[in-house]
Amino acid sequence: MANIEKLIWPGSTQLAPVPPVLVGCGGGQLPNNLFTVAWTGIACSRPPLITIAVRPERYSYGLIRASGEFTVNLPTAPLARAVDFCGVRSGRDLDKFAACRLTPLSGSAVSAPLVAECPLSLECRVEQTLELGSHTLFLARILAIQVNADWVDASGRLNLERDGLLAYAHGHYYGLGACLGHFGFSVRRKASAASRRRETRPSTSK
Amino acid sequence: MANIEKLIWPGSTQLAPVPPVLVGCGGGQLPNNLFTVAWTGIACSRPPLITIAVRPERYSYGLIRASGEFTVNLPTAPLARAVDFCGVRSGRDLDKFAACRLTPLSGSAVSAPLVAECPLSLECRVEQTLELGSHTLFLARILAIQVNADWVDASGRLNLERDGLLAYAHGHYYGLGACLGHFGFSVRRKASAASRRRETRPSTSK
Repeated sequence: MANIEKLIWPGSTQLAPVPPVLVGCGGGQLPNNLFTVAWTGIACSRPPLITIAVRPERYSYGLIRASGEFTVNLPTAPLARAVDFCGVRSGRDLDKFAACRLTPLSGSAVSAPLVAECPLSLECRVEQTLELGSHTLFLARILAIQVNADWVDASGRLNLERDGLLAYAHGHYYGLGACLGHFGFSVRRKASAASRRRETRPSTSK
Repeated sequence: MANIEKLIWPGSTQLAPVPPVLVGCGGGQLPNNLFTVAWTGIACSRPPLITIAVRPERYSYGLIRASGEFTVNLPTAPLARAVDFCGVRSGRDLDKFAACRLTPLSGSAVSAPLVAECPLSLECRVEQTLELGSHTLFLARILAIQVNADWVDASGRLNLERDGLLAYAHGHYYGLGACLGHFGFSVRRKASAASRRRETRPSTSK
């Protein structure tokens, strides 16, 4: 490779792209609220666990502490403005569902509201709370997911690419661009070439 | 909104898009290795902390356990094939740096190798290890970052959009598409319009 000059900087939170998800909280006896979280990640598959990092001074922090529940809603590109708004404005001051014309939907396993306009939502219950400094990390079990029926094809396969999910990288929102391959494509091409060689009689090979 | 039919499914790890990062591990007295992790997230900003979820049966798991260190390297779209390869092949069987023609680079704060071809790398030291089930979650402090000098503009600002970062969603790799706005754009337009009104004399306003 070419000799690339590297700069060494102090540690900082430069992970990208990340999903700028709409987190629903409150519900039941609590007011509904919605806020944007880019600092989220999957932590385990069996059981399915997710983390979200939340500043204790945020209004939603108290709601999640009170109920032990939240929802994670994946936004599409047309929701970029609502996602941004829910990240900069506080639920202390206004009803963000109403302000963004988003529709709260009942959870199947939690009281926290889902966002109907998001094609896929995760219903989550907090299992561990780690106070780490500026942020508290909620580690939560994904109890159920709700998905738009029209994102599921005839074979029952989820088609998350349908309307284009929103991504966030270093202060900017992006749509997803070109698909560059599927999981395993780097080794599957050779495998299928080999299996073609095995399965195809010489007379039919090009 | 239109009445959107929702399907309710059991909980699963449907978070997207996520960053399919190349994690460097080993180094020092240990062999260098590289593997792909899509299950990563920022956990805190002060101190800067990151999580990666790793299956204990992976070769890299033992290396991270042994050294307590790893690096997180953000790939660009042209690295999609290498990223996929490092996710499906094991370092038990081959040297993935060599197989992918990637260049290991010394860390400034850790012995784990960085990937020179990635424009941005995080050097991380494990602070907590949470055994959660199928995966173990490493919670690590980001001690330093290394960034390509040509990704930093004259004002010292990092330009992560320069070559296009790689994203992963539901089994497929994507480049980033169109930029849809910057953080705060949903409220800043009104603010700057208001400030224009304040700052601009009536004779010059349109």
